[in-house]
Amino acid sequence: MKKVLITTKLLPEGLNELRKYFEVITPDKDQFTREEILNQITVVDVLLPTFSVQVDKEMIDAGKNLTLIANYGVGYNNIDTYYAREKGIAVTNTPYPVTEPTAEMAFGLLLSVARKITICDRKLREPDGITWGLLQNLGQSVFGKKLGIVGLGRIGKAIARRALSSGMEVVYFNRNKLSEKEERELQVSFVPFDTLLKTADIISISTPLTKETTHLFDKPQFDLMKPNAILINTARGAIVHEKALIDALRNGKIWGAGLDVYEFEPSISEELLAMDQVVLAPHNGTATVDARNEITAYAGMCIIEFFKGNLISVVN
Amino acid sequence: MKKVLITTKLLPEGLNELRKYFEVITPDKDQFTREEILNQITVVDVLLPTFSVQVDKEMIDAGKNLTLIANYGVGYNNIDTYYAREKGIAVTNTPYPVTEPTAEMAFGLLLSVARKITICDRKLREPDGITWGLLQNLGQSVFGKKLGIVGLGRIGKAIARRALSSGMEVVYFNRNKLSEKEERELQVSFVPFDTLLKTADIISISTPLTKETTHLFDKPQFDLMKPNAILINTARGAIVHEKALIDALRNGKIWGAGLDVYEFEPSISEELLAMDQVVLAPHNGTATVDARNEITAYAGMCIIEFFKGNLISVVN
Repeated sequence: MKKVLITTKLLPEGLNELRKYFEVITPDKDQFTREEILNQITVVDVLLPTFSVQVDKEMIDAGKNLTLIANYGVGYNNIDTYYAREKGIAVTNTPYPVTEPTAEMAFGLLLSVARKITICDRKLREPDGITWGLLQNLGQSVFGKKLGIVGLGRIGKAIARRALSSGMEVVYFNRNKLSEKEERELQVSFVPFDTLLKTADIISISTPLTKETTHLFDKPQFDLMKPNAILINTARGAIVHEKALIDALRNGKIWGAGLDVYEFEPSISEELLAMDQVVLAPHNGTATVDARNEITAYAGMCIIEFFKGNLISVVN
Repeated sequence: MKKVLITTKLLPEGLNELRKYFEVITPDKDQFTREEILNQITVVDVLLPTFSVQVDKEMIDAGKNLTLIANYGVGYNNIDTYYAREKGIAVTNTPYPVTEPTAEMAFGLLLSVARKITICDRKLREPDGITWGLLQNLGQSVFGKKLGIVGLGRIGKAIARRALSSGMEVVYFNRNKLSEKEERELQVSFVPFDTLLKTADIISISTPLTKETTHLFDKPQFDLMKPNAILINTARGAIVHEKALIDALRNGKIWGAGLDVYEFEPSISEELLAMDQVVLAPHNGTATVDARNEITAYAGMCIIEFFKGNLISVVN
């Protein structure tokens, strides 16, 4: 029986199918240490890592029998996919079960910031409470506003669908412009990045983290944004220069932010934690029982099919 | 010039048009006291009250020249519309500008509860912080779940639109079933109230407060609901027996709640304020600068048109 090393404790339900065909090694605690992974990877055929495990050259070299790295999740910036390819090791990810839960989180953060849901809940629970009244705690309507999506892949499109049903106009910026037919079907319009920054009321980031997108949002970008603008990031923290974001919020360059990811995750800047105009989530884009099981089952399916000769969601 | 008494301070922008044709009396402070209203109503033609002002027989009798009560907002349970009608006084409300902002709030609360957005933000800011991890802070996916809407009027339909774009199935209960054509167009299905209670994963209340809907949700109703159910109320607090809701949450009869309104508003039960599985908003359904101005302008338009002989949004 071939062996699969899973770096992190997952919900057992999603592993049922995989266990029928493979010997599965999982930690009893939350996650194996790097040393424990390096020790055990020597004898396994497949590694199933999560995003907090750095699968670098050293780890790949240690996997002497490794033929597949089946990543848990859609983002794989934690894996040296080029080196894996050089060594003939395939890398897969799990795009489909991640899409809708992440779009839900992005849209939930968007509404929570714009409509001041989280801040009002917190204030209501504080000893001083909150002042009720028609002119108190006013947020921004989302209806009739313009959403700018940076990176219109699966998740971006799922966010666009929600925004359109909420009465928003949707523009996007992408490496590749969609065909006009697809734009018409999705009811979205391509704009240059600077135009998106200057005209969008709400900006949502759904692009992968690459060299090109690292610090894509820095001081010059915040300077272009509208003073009422809200930034949503459910992609990867390092796409945003966190210090520049803090300055932009503090100086009123933008109005608010909803963040599920952080540049120095799991550490969050103290300044953000003290700000009322931000809503902060602990990388919870797919943090539901439903989604966790579906992602695990999908990664398992990629492994099972790989050894039947079917390459599913291979990214390298 | 005819006189309009506005009980509560509103954003000035929305009053521009009204001031062209009417003498407008507004408070310098947040709201006139009941006594101040009773003193001034004697000389005005129009009263423009907000939902926290009780427009009862005594107040209506005091308005000797009153011909119109132009309510700010869509709910008018604060006004004795039957007595006003007896006295030949018309009552109008502002359904259109309220619809989308309230649906936004309902859907924002729904996502915030299901995806644990507000509770995670609060915990991240607490000294002990939060435990990060794949199996921590798991919420419920909304995608693929069933939404039950109680009261499918304008706001209910606007919520349904958002839910459908989020991959939810939508059922509803209403006094009057829609035509099959309209159900097909809206992609919603009528179910009896008990069926809705037993089968919906999330229930959203959008019905007016009347004698019939007071305590529509009480212990027997919570007993029928699914243990993973979430209740959203952006309509009126007294539709839900607050003590029964607290018991249902405490005993695990239901999973969570998102509330914008309360039975004893602006007072909120201490038990609710201490619960992690609820998200609480201070009657903020239309609390945006955009919406506040649009509601004010709409009420003003009802007044202007009324004296031209056009009855717009008359409810009695």
